[in-house]
Amino acid sequence: MSVTAPRGFRAAGVAAGLKSSGDPDVALVVNDGPDIAAAGVFTANRIKAAPVLWSQQVLGGGLVRAVVLNSGGANACTGAPGFQDTHATAEHTAATLGGAAGGPAVGAGEVAICSTGLIGERLPMDRLLPGVAAAVAGLTTDGGAAAAEAIMTTDTRPKTTVVDGAGWTVGGMAKGSGMLAPALATMLCVVTTDAVAGPAMLDEALREACRVSLERVDSDGCLSTNDTVLLLASGASGIAPGQAELTAAVTAACRDLARQLVADAEGASKEVAIEVVGAAGEDDAVEVGRAVARNNLVKTALFGNDPNWGRILAAVGTTAAAFEPDGVDVAVNGVWVCRSGAAAEDRSKVDLTGRQVTIRIDLHAGPAEATVWTNDLSHAYVHENSAYST
Amino acid sequence: MSVTAPRGFRAAGVAAGLKSSGDPDVALVVNDGPDIAAAGVFTANRIKAAPVLWSQQVLGGGLVRAVVLNSGGANACTGAPGFQDTHATAEHTAATLGGAAGGPAVGAGEVAICSTGLIGERLPMDRLLPGVAAAVAGLTTDGGAAAAEAIMTTDTRPKTTVVDGAGWTVGGMAKGSGMLAPALATMLCVVTTDAVAGPAMLDEALREACRVSLERVDSDGCLSTNDTVLLLASGASGIAPGQAELTAAVTAACRDLARQLVADAEGASKEVAIEVVGAAGEDDAVEVGRAVARNNLVKTALFGNDPNWGRILAAVGTTAAAFEPDGVDVAVNGVWVCRSGAAAEDRSKVDLTGRQVTIRIDLHAGPAEATVWTNDLSHAYVHENSAYST
Repeated sequence: MSVTAPRGFRAAGVAAGLKSSGDPDVALVVNDGPDIAAAGVFTANRIKAAPVLWSQQVLGGGLVRAVVLNSGGANACTGAPGFQDTHATAEHTAATLGGAAGGPAVGAGEVAICSTGLIGERLPMDRLLPGVAAAVAGLTTDGGAAAAEAIMTTDTRPKTTVVDGAGWTVGGMAKGSGMLAPALATMLCVVTTDAVAGPAMLDEALREACRVSLERVDSDGCLSTNDTVLLLASGASGIAPGQAELTAAVTAACRDLARQLVADAEGASKEVAIEVVGAAGEDDAVEVGRAVARNNLVKTALFGNDPNWGRILAAVGTTAAAFEPDGVDVAVNGVWVCRSGAAAEDRSKVDLTGRQVTIRIDLHAGPAEATVWTNDLSHAYVHENSAYST
Repeated sequence: MSVTAPRGFRAAGVAAGLKSSGDPDVALVVNDGPDIAAAGVFTANRIKAAPVLWSQQVLGGGLVRAVVLNSGGANACTGAPGFQDTHATAEHTAATLGGAAGGPAVGAGEVAICSTGLIGERLPMDRLLPGVAAAVAGLTTDGGAAAAEAIMTTDTRPKTTVVDGAGWTVGGMAKGSGMLAPALATMLCVVTTDAVAGPAMLDEALREACRVSLERVDSDGCLSTNDTVLLLASGASGIAPGQAELTAAVTAACRDLARQLVADAEGASKEVAIEVVGAAGEDDAVEVGRAVARNNLVKTALFGNDPNWGRILAAVGTTAAAFEPDGVDVAVNGVWVCRSGAAAEDRSKVDLTGRQVTIRIDLHAGPAEATVWTNDLSHAYVHENSAYST
């Protein structure tokens, strides 16, 4: 049910002809209220796509009536004309929504825009705007699945989630499989809820949720120009959860989507959880996990079913985290192949034939821990990213 | 002629059986003086191999009579026993050299050790020590080529250089093709000269040379546990160049070797120079160059002959360098495909069929510039690093 699982939301996904394949490429999510509170988190890349610059302005007001998402073009590095295209899309969406029978009055400043696809090319507005109109016409309260499908690029399957609260619900959808990134895993992600919550409360819930989920995914170390995560609240349940309760549900939804992103990352044959324990602080644990997640030699070894703990230790050694070089233990799928920085259990005991891999690193430097998710570096990744422009 | 091009040096390369292939795997370089001044630069990785820990102590004294280098095993993450192996190798080398007919008196504290190969396994000392003895017996004043061959691992060809000074010479050899790194391109590298120069002068020359050459190579973003660069001076020419003159010659030698390392990097089908100009400072230029060099999406695009400037710009955007997002120009092989952060010349004009690629990035933020060298990310890289433990 994706973003339409909570009450108060309609969605649609249509094919506007932005993708040469003819697959669906325009999604629309509308919050029918009674509230239209919202929060957003955006890419840390300083080269931001036009829709990111636009949506950051929209979210500044804390109110979002609708989100338009298109695949088939990132509208990044397109200069002032690209920004005007985004603005025109928001205006067109607002006018079309407002003009629809029974539709709410909508201002363009309440319409967030997300785009994904090739960087550096203008969007074909003569196709996008009719696509938006078709999406408005196709809005339904069970359109979440169609919307999740329309935002796919190199994704092989849609990513959706539903988390139940006490009388209220969180739903979500995401796309993303390349450019999963150090600062924010590259994606477009829309999370909805029918809980009653204002923009500040949503903002706190979303930031904390991203910090421990989407921001701990690192597929290929590349930070995109278009990352956007939005949280919309309709208040349609009439129930106002506490901050902790809301944050927990949003975190569960984002974590579920994050794992789906890693599982479907470009060319991935392994889903890898890097659990760093015994760290002096959480930041240290994340730094170590990320260094291992980004290491091409570790990732190619995993692709080759090689429990190469030496490469893991070499990656740990590049960090500034607190640890003693001869005090680090490493387990691969439960076998402690390295103890105190040297060989321990026989590496031939490690079974890497399955898709799930857990690397556990004990720094023996304190009580903190964190998990970073990544995948292997495969021939398919090289093929997919060398054979196609994205 | 490699390290034996300057007067006062002998070298040898022998097969000791460390490599299962039976290829040469032990090299020895001896400085016959009259001087035995030396300087060294070592990996910034906090997980340092035993030979690095040993050689750092040796270089603290500024005097090196001999360097033993072995391929077929890194002796990293081997704990105290591994360090004892290195110590024993130095003792054995000193004793064998000192006992040779006409040989100089040598202390183990004047013998530097370098190792390369798989991390986490002990070296077979019963093969290594006889190998050292055979190398001592095989020392000749034209043994530089044999030594350069014996330090190869996945290198497909030896790397050597000779730079002529005014009556004195600089020679060098290097190995390295994977784990080329952000802080110091992974390698073993020995540079010799018959110039007259003390340890402090050598140290200054070597640090400056590495800063602008080997430290600006970034093949796969992975920092090794064994990186070592040594500079040995015999003084046999009797000529004492000035600091600037010496630094220039050592820099030329290191730059030549650095380019050879990139050209022969694992799986590389492209040699890529990333020239960053218009930077506010040299540090900014290096940061931008390195961010692009490390970006897997840029590297796979180059492998696919795709002048994907959007990925280049996205990589630039991850840095803290001074620039305006809409003020960056990018040229690929001379075609300015991006001006002011947006599409400019037709990307189809870019010819990427050759092996040499130049990416030029103008930040329009100042007068500084720097070049970082890297290569593409290919199927062969994935194959080589997934199919074999290194």
